[in-house]
Amino acid sequence: MLVVMKAQATREEVQAVCDQIEAMGYRAHPLPGAQRTAIGITGNQGEIERGNLEEMSGVAEVIRVSKPYKLVSRDVKEDDTILRFPGTNATIGGKNLAMIAGPCSIESREQAFAIAEHVAHAGAQFFRGGAYKPRTSPYAFQGLGEEALKIMAEIRDRFGLRIVTEAIDHEALELVAEYADVIQIGARNMQNYSLLKAAGRKRKPVLLKRGLAATLDEFLMAAEYIMSEGNYEVVLCERGVRTFADHTRNTLDLSIVPAVQRLSHLPIIVDPSHGTGKRNKVLPLARAAVAVGADGLIIEVHHQPDKALSDGIQSILPEQFTQLMDECSQIAAVLHRAVPRGVQVEAGAAAAAR
Amino acid sequence: MLVVMKAQATREEVQAVCDQIEAMGYRAHPLPGAQRTAIGITGNQGEIERGNLEEMSGVAEVIRVSKPYKLVSRDVKEDDTILRFPGTNATIGGKNLAMIAGPCSIESREQAFAIAEHVAHAGAQFFRGGAYKPRTSPYAFQGLGEEALKIMAEIRDRFGLRIVTEAIDHEALELVAEYADVIQIGARNMQNYSLLKAAGRKRKPVLLKRGLAATLDEFLMAAEYIMSEGNYEVVLCERGVRTFADHTRNTLDLSIVPAVQRLSHLPIIVDPSHGTGKRNKVLPLARAAVAVGADGLIIEVHHQPDKALSDGIQSILPEQFTQLMDECSQIAAVLHRAVPRGVQVEAGAAAAAR
Amino acid sequence: MLVVMKAQATREEVQAVCDQIEAMGYRAHPLPGAQRTAIGITGNQGEIERGNLEEMSGVAEVIRVSKPYKLVSRDVKEDDTILRFPGTNATIGGKNLAMIAGPCSIESREQAFAIAEHVAHAGAQFFRGGAYKPRTSPYAFQGLGEEALKIMAEIRDRFGLRIVTEAIDHEALELVAEYADVIQIGARNMQNYSLLKAAGRKRKPVLLKRGLAATLDEFLMAAEYIMSEGNYEVVLCERGVRTFADHTRNTLDLSIVPAVQRLSHLPIIVDPSHGTGKRNKVLPLARAAVAVGADGLIIEVHHQPDKALSDGIQSILPEQFTQLMDECSQIAAVLHRAVPRGVQVEAGAAAAAR
Amino acid sequence: MLVVMKAQATREEVQAVCDQIEAMGYRAHPLPGAQRTAIGITGNQGEIERGNLEEMSGVAEVIRVSKPYKLVSRDVKEDDTILRFPGTNATIGGKNLAMIAGPCSIESREQAFAIAEHVAHAGAQFFRGGAYKPRTSPYAFQGLGEEALKIMAEIRDRFGLRIVTEAIDHEALELVAEYADVIQIGARNMQNYSLLKAAGRKRKPVLLKRGLAATLDEFLMAAEYIMSEGNYEVVLCERGVRTFADHTRNTLDLSIVPAVQRLSHLPIIVDPSHGTGKRNKVLPLARAAVAVGADGLIIEVHHQPDKALSDGIQSILPEQFTQLMDECSQIAAVLHRAVPRGVQVEAGAAAAAR
Repeated sequence: MLVVMKAQATREEVQAVCDQIEAMGYRAHPLPGAQRTAIGITGNQGEIERGNLEEMSGVAEVIRVSKPYKLVSRDVKEDDTILRFPGTNATIGGKNLAMIAGPCSIESREQAFAIAEHVAHAGAQFFRGGAYKPRTSPYAFQGLGEEALKIMAEIRDRFGLRIVTEAIDHEALELVAEYADVIQIGARNMQNYSLLKAAGRKRKPVLLKRGLAATLDEFLMAAEYIMSEGNYEVVLCERGVRTFADHTRNTLDLSIVPAVQRLSHLPIIVDPSHGTGKRNKVLPLARAAVAVGADGLIIEVHHQPDKALSDGIQSILPEQFTQLMDECSQIAAVLHRAVPRGVQVEAGAAAAAR
Repeated sequence: MLVVMKAQATREEVQAVCDQIEAMGYRAHPLPGAQRTAIGITGNQGEIERGNLEEMSGVAEVIRVSKPYKLVSRDVKEDDTILRFPGTNATIGGKNLAMIAGPCSIESREQAFAIAEHVAHAGAQFFRGGAYKPRTSPYAFQGLGEEALKIMAEIRDRFGLRIVTEAIDHEALELVAEYADVIQIGARNMQNYSLLKAAGRKRKPVLLKRGLAATLDEFLMAAEYIMSEGNYEVVLCERGVRTFADHTRNTLDLSIVPAVQRLSHLPIIVDPSHGTGKRNKVLPLARAAVAVGADGLIIEVHHQPDKALSDGIQSILPEQFTQLMDECSQIAAVLHRAVPRGVQVEAGAAAAAR
Repeated sequence: MLVVMKAQATREEVQAVCDQIEAMGYRAHPLPGAQRTAIGITGNQGEIERGNLEEMSGVAEVIRVSKPYKLVSRDVKEDDTILRFPGTNATIGGKNLAMIAGPCSIESREQAFAIAEHVAHAGAQFFRGGAYKPRTSPYAFQGLGEEALKIMAEIRDRFGLRIVTEAIDHEALELVAEYADVIQIGARNMQNYSLLKAAGRKRKPVLLKRGLAATLDEFLMAAEYIMSEGNYEVVLCERGVRTFADHTRNTLDLSIVPAVQRLSHLPIIVDPSHGTGKRNKVLPLARAAVAVGADGLIIEVHHQPDKALSDGIQSILPEQFTQLMDECSQIAAVLHRAVPRGVQVEAGAAAAAR
Repeated sequence: MLVVMKAQATREEVQAVCDQIEAMGYRAHPLPGAQRTAIGITGNQGEIERGNLEEMSGVAEVIRVSKPYKLVSRDVKEDDTILRFPGTNATIGGKNLAMIAGPCSIESREQAFAIAEHVAHAGAQFFRGGAYKPRTSPYAFQGLGEEALKIMAEIRDRFGLRIVTEAIDHEALELVAEYADVIQIGARNMQNYSLLKAAGRKRKPVLLKRGLAATLDEFLMAAEYIMSEGNYEVVLCERGVRTFADHTRNTLDLSIVPAVQRLSHLPIIVDPSHGTGKRNKVLPLARAAVAVGADGLIIEVHHQPDKALSDGIQSILPEQFTQLMDECSQIAAVLHRAVPRGVQVEAGAAAAAR
């Protein structure tokens, strides 16, 4: 169920409707749009008595939402969601593309800083780096944990880059939410509903990767889990699905980008590094992702990929990242979009960033 | 790395080797076999200095294990693992098949007892029922939680059935480990390594379902995560994988049964209910699973499937379960295996079961 | 559209209806059942004027068939189709299982006779052997062609085995139809509609293998292509589909057996040799195929698999085939079906077989 | 085996080597490159006595080719293959992109001309249209056959567009080779080796579509079948593969474009119409295909898609095709490639085109 407010509805009227919904025992999700605010209602089993709500001041109409996903849907919020990062010009969603780059894993302060400097210089606004790694083998390198988070916090202070890193469980989530700017939920956890709900209770943006065998509906429903807890800042990420094809590690399904954009207001970015698993395929698929209309890219970059503790084979070199930024900028322009050249931090913002 | 003890090695000699391994900073996993005990070593990065160990009393040889999975491997433990449930004749693994049956979700005491009575009467030794349900939608029925666990504990007391139920997160795991006899980890959580490790620290058997897009290696490595924490009672479960085929909900991959049995000593059972998603396919695929050599079955049974809160469409009726038990018993006999007719509880055991 | 005749309708009445259908410019397909004959109508674009037909003598009713497949459907013919081979007790479909065995390729007269003797002795009724091989590489062994067909004709004369062999194109089809008893259409040609139609114009049974990525509907529609040309003796064959799973060459989808049997009257058999691609998986999956309800098996057997010119790795040894026949017979008995022990040729039939 | 000629080798020396290879009982495939000619040798079982060849005049070296594909490989021919269409500026391969557009099926002269006029005006150089349609159902519209071919020949004369159309079997192949400029082999026939070999004996370019479940190796080997018969003008086409994903009809696997280009000198184009099956996805995926580096596009266009006899749902409107050409041209420029604006026919060439 969805309450659409009138364009001229006041903040107080919106609040009054939310209070009434909560008083009815449901949960209210106010989602401001460019023209007007819609309020999603969740927590109901079956039909809601709509009479009370329709008569309230400032309400335009009350609509039944028949799709299984509600808060992620364009029915509830027509305008594209744009995530903003206070104190900087960095955004995810909207006209500007979000460029996220960095190593698979944070291996050391030296490694992280060397790569961060490169990607910041090449124009990325976000730095990615694994602190907690979900590895197929219990005996493989599992990440540096909090030490890595601290290194990345330093990188933010030094280069102004916003930090994206994965939370693999509740414990890691607490720390990631404390140190990072964007909480990543990995493909293997896309249906770890407990973790999704916990991320939904944080007030940091969540980057949700598509599961290896997730349908479009399952992908959107996973985002719905996060939003249903009140966190509306969700970014989707296509990173390849599992098929019979063996020339790439996964099969990058770029068609999900326009498919998501048709149904949902959430931004969707693409990860060609995991999507192909091969260094020589990252650049062409990155170009293709921008051309298909993705709202950004997340790219693994390593200055010494042969020595990387994880995923070296799919990490591109710094100079390849520069070329990627250049070609993607030109393609973005064809779609009347832009790749902003690096993050600009407002005066005094770096110190206040945490 | 693997230390193989001599057949006549004493308990003290085994302990001394374990102590030495731990003193070297690694983890020791003693795995007793029919002939002799092997001790798996984990926690090492790279090669271990084997000299010390080879010279210890009772040691037959020290072997390098090259496969990524160690503790799950037949290299480490040649004999089939058989799980026993003290106080009863119920087992998983070995000559006798384990038959697990019950509703998708526990909906009420009445529903659960009605179905439990049926399946106990038909000869099942284990009762399954969902207390915590991983649902694609955050708005769908999520299970009765601890209330359901209490109902199942009563069912154990009343019918002698051992209880199998899913733990969807750490919180649920604590309660499931307290009330149930077997902790189920669902397909969506097969690579939720944090949960696997937590289950590995419990001292209750774990039923691990194959992920929707998991390869054989990933499946075994997920079991390795549990075992690497010291819980060696793991049962694998094939429940269908995701393919292009649309005549069933998933594609049941029975070939993984002999594939697992070739590489691992762990038992593997089959879930034809989720594997097909259609009531009319459960019986034929259950027969096929027994014929292929599965160590047991897990079957959804509901006396009023049209009213089920989840998965009614794939639940079979009690009388169909009786036929299934009958046909599967006959097929098991062809393989020189048996379906024991119901659980026999030793005198006084029910009271002591918890 | 379908004309259902009354139970007591005479042969002349059936003929008159067929003549009328043809006079209307359509094609008539009389399909006799146990109770009564149905006449399928194809060749119409859209609706047929049914008035004329409904009033004819012997007609019970005229029914609109809404499914895309008509002649393969149980709506048109309720009873299972049983293929008979004149002069012998061999059948495909019905209570008795059809056991087809032999080498992947006919390599020489000696090889073929050695294997044929084994499989005949073990109780097979049909001999399979490739004369024309569809190979991924143009430079790989392509089969002995007509020479192989002649060898197989000798094998029929000598052992009474009925011959099954693949036609890879129109040219091969002519020769296969001349020499063999069953024309095989391989997985790669399942949607080679031109070849299907040509096979439909032959008056020999056709064994149609499922394509590597064929849905149930596409599989049945391929059979419909054959039947629409007037050849109603079609046997379907599941041989594994292509998925991400890498522990077998293909993923054997046994659930399609009951799925086909629910919708169609045609027999369906299973090929666990191609379905798994591994010798050690053939026996367990063969048992599973019989247990799921398959109407027969097609098995690759080779007495010297290490020297085989194709598919040696998935060919079982003669003694393994004997064990397979034994175990499958016992499982068939559980389903009240039988594996007849070898083909019995009526006196004088061998000479007349061609 | 591969004979690499010296840069300055004369035509006579190349011919002498070819003659010698044929005299040895093998088949010679001279493949001229920008720098020098290589001569592929096929028809050998195992190793060839290389001594004779190495000593011949003009020979630089004789190399063993270990890959299963030879003639398609860059090992044999390093430069990109560029197909030229005499009398016009149309090409496939190389710097200029080949744009192929038209209706799924030729339905009538009026329909075909209306669409051809649009696509020619928008700048396409090739016209596609089905004369023979491989349909899942034997009762669906199968195409107008030779009548459609004649209409397309008229379109070539009128608009200068080169004609691409599918040959579904040997009979159709003869006519298609007579009327069309490019013979298309469809996805369902990618492993119809008999048809591939027949196409390999024609002297018209062949457009080979990837099968629905074809691996990269199988795709290249199918092209090898055509080339092994002496037809070296092969264009590959990605058109989507079959996966579990259900938001598009097929999953377009753009990563195969750089994968093919790495291994083979053959051009590869993309079909986003079949690759997505949805009109609203064609434009974004067309852009992505150009961005990934495809050598061209094949697009279904219909001026009245709601009335199309086949594939209306995935056909774009003429004005959408104009937009597609415009956006793709701009993206091509980023890759230093061009979309030539329409075919230019040399004076007098139209009459001589056949």
